[in-house]
Amino acid sequence: MARNTQVAADHNAPPITQLLAKFVATHPSRGWNDAVDHEAHRTLVNWVGCAVGAADHESARAALAGMKMLQPAPQSSILGRADKVDMASAALVNGITSHTFDFDDTHLKTVIHPAGPVASALLALAETNGASGRELIDALVLGVDVECRIGNCMYPDHYDRGWHITGSTGSLGAAAACARLMKLDEQHTAWALGIAASQPIGMREQFGTMTKPFHPGGAARAGLTSALLAKNGFTASARAIEAPRGYCQVVSTKNDWNEITGELGQRFEISFNTYKPFACGIVIHPAIDAATQLRAQGVTAENVERVELRVHPLVLELTGKKEPQDGLQAKFSVYHGFAAGLIFGQAGERQYDDEIVTRADMVALRRKVIATMDDSIAEASADVTAILRDGRKVHLFVEHAIGSVERPMSDAALGDKFHSLCDPVIGKAKADALIAACWKVASAKDVRGIAEGARP
Amino acid sequence: MARNTQVAADHNAPPITQLLAKFVATHPSRGWNDAVDHEAHRTLVNWVGCAVGAADHESARAALAGMKMLQPAPQSSILGRADKVDMASAALVNGITSHTFDFDDTHLKTVIHPAGPVASALLALAETNGASGRELIDALVLGVDVECRIGNCMYPDHYDRGWHITGSTGSLGAAAACARLMKLDEQHTAWALGIAASQPIGMREQFGTMTKPFHPGGAARAGLTSALLAKNGFTASARAIEAPRGYCQVVSTKNDWNEITGELGQRFEISFNTYKPFACGIVIHPAIDAATQLRAQGVTAENVERVELRVHPLVLELTGKKEPQDGLQAKFSVYHGFAAGLIFGQAGERQYDDEIVTRADMVALRRKVIATMDDSIAEASADVTAILRDGRKVHLFVEHAIGSVERPMSDAALGDKFHSLCDPVIGKAKADALIAACWKVASAKDVRGIAEGARP
Repeated sequence: MARNTQVAADHNAPPITQLLAKFVATHPSRGWNDAVDHEAHRTLVNWVGCAVGAADHESARAALAGMKMLQPAPQSSILGRADKVDMASAALVNGITSHTFDFDDTHLKTVIHPAGPVASALLALAETNGASGRELIDALVLGVDVECRIGNCMYPDHYDRGWHITGSTGSLGAAAACARLMKLDEQHTAWALGIAASQPIGMREQFGTMTKPFHPGGAARAGLTSALLAKNGFTASARAIEAPRGYCQVVSTKNDWNEITGELGQRFEISFNTYKPFACGIVIHPAIDAATQLRAQGVTAENVERVELRVHPLVLELTGKKEPQDGLQAKFSVYHGFAAGLIFGQAGERQYDDEIVTRADMVALRRKVIATMDDSIAEASADVTAILRDGRKVHLFVEHAIGSVERPMSDAALGDKFHSLCDPVIGKAKADALIAACWKVASAKDVRGIAEGARP
Repeated sequence: MARNTQVAADHNAPPITQLLAKFVATHPSRGWNDAVDHEAHRTLVNWVGCAVGAADHESARAALAGMKMLQPAPQSSILGRADKVDMASAALVNGITSHTFDFDDTHLKTVIHPAGPVASALLALAETNGASGRELIDALVLGVDVECRIGNCMYPDHYDRGWHITGSTGSLGAAAACARLMKLDEQHTAWALGIAASQPIGMREQFGTMTKPFHPGGAARAGLTSALLAKNGFTASARAIEAPRGYCQVVSTKNDWNEITGELGQRFEISFNTYKPFACGIVIHPAIDAATQLRAQGVTAENVERVELRVHPLVLELTGKKEPQDGLQAKFSVYHGFAAGLIFGQAGERQYDDEIVTRADMVALRRKVIATMDDSIAEASADVTAILRDGRKVHLFVEHAIGSVERPMSDAALGDKFHSLCDPVIGKAKADALIAACWKVASAKDVRGIAEGARP
């Protein structure tokens, strides 16, 4: 139709849907190096910890109550709860809980949180269909690859336009992963991708509400059910992803197809996955890291007169809330994050409890922090000067925060994070067994060690 | 964020989400005139007929087989089948079947097919929660109003960009309708709309595949489950629809808010709903109508030498397939539609069977039709000249085809269409009872007369 479309259609896109379907359906099991395989396990550990940790959050309870109105069959587990529901609802709820604390993994190039959609769909499906742990890890690597490559293709325009890229690419990642886990052939995998391509989920306006974590959950459900339809012969366009009126061109004005096709099967995007040491948006992490380093050098809330914090403008645009009133607002406050880092040496979910946010020493310390925008500071960095009561100045520059690709969390630190999330929900002994089941899942004949091991 | 967004954000949108939530939650039962209420019944009749008619189509079987993998509880009926599944899956499958033949209703200003998302969600929910027929009709009017007003706001840019507007606005219509049926208050209705706003479904690239009818089905499921979540306290942004990074501004570059707010509660978009007399895209209807009129004047396939058909360019762009090979291709052939109208006097689903499409007299007649694009002819019109073997010319100009707002199908004609769809599936006697149940649903204490009455 010749009316006023905003962007010229690209009629010459490569056959992305078919290429990805072939890749997902035929790439060999463990067709990558040990580092990739290990990163997949780290991704799984971090995702399970986040999901278990938020299992009794009010958003989880509300979502579960809604899905129970469908009188679901007890197919698959809600991590960290005694409940079992149908696998589509389990995918939804685990996707919600894993993102509820904003503590999940991040593919920094696209700000996608890869595991929420993909792992949530996969575990629910694997628990029902009896897939092996090896098959789960294979599907996780491939699903995350599809999800993040499509994100790379469209980022940043797609995100800038307002899409919550985790949910909007997550349906495709989850569909790819589930198609793989069910051993669908190329044609059926292409249909699964095609059906999922009609279901991008999530806008950024929802940030700060329960619908933000709904996005990875909804994407997990959409991807899983797309694969179920495709398995039974439900068809979709063979060019659903790349056609002029297909997914990518409808939801993004920038599409660099090479980001999808380049080094496909050789470079795996899960290699670039990162895990948050702090329970808040990634842009705050350099400031928190700086605070914990100042603390290690003897700077305290008592002996500090004021703090001069220079950050990229985006940091204050997204997280400039100076006087947060509760935990949710504090997630959008670089001031709170810094104060938590200095007073507690950490910024886990506990440090975002309402009673911590309103504590007098936290309020006082936040007020001592003067944050300024500085274009010369990268988004990943922070420049901090603490002026002490005795007149001394302590200066720190954090180029890359702990948890970045450049300074990854160690497996041990991931374990500490896992326990901080899981122990309050299932107890330390069960958490020990659960994380062990995650690390060795690839040799497990099924995934019950994870699904059932997370039950309180 | 200050990167290259394509269109300036509108920060001054009226509070659309709140206005619509208040409207849906508080507008009086039957708060409109009799003509509106009757149109709602016509919408219901047409939707039931279409859903029953396609109940055993391969797309219905594939979708149902997929959803049965969830081991659904037998909550709600699949129209035209013995199956009962959970209400979300019933909404999905009935939404698919009602659009499978492209024979459902059309809101011509936006090309939305309103009932697919809204009625499919509503009947599934009403069957489970025991709502009355009056409540069903109220919710249908309000849900369609929300859906079509949002469509009016964004059309045509949103559609031109590639969105299948039925699915992309349908999630919101279905959520509004289900919130009303569950008697949610303003706050919870706003959340239902908000959660649905994160789930626009469907791109036009899918036309010609099963994923096209998936769109209204997926929207029905998304809207229904959004309302279930909201009922249980799941929150969403209070400006989910209108904010700069909310639904409308993310999926459309044109947003005329007055289309949503103007005469809200006074003008009802369901008034402008239309029903197809012919089982194909609306742009073909003027040509088919012309053919049936020529037939009534004695023009036949045998005595016609050639046909000169002048149509709006869009008609040939969308339906210019001259030599369709099967029923699906024939749906995109104005030539086939014209030939069916002249030979059979109708173009129902039967006239799109493969064996009709390939019949020698149909092939021969299609080849006699010379169609040309003419900018001076409106999309709703067709200009036809039949040149007969004896040299006579018969000229006809159809300004508005039968089935348009200007020339609506009569209730009796809707009944004939209903029977043509339902009789082969459930038999004439049951179809008689079923359509009677639809016409008098507003006085029924529940909706079992429809849900159970459609069982073969």
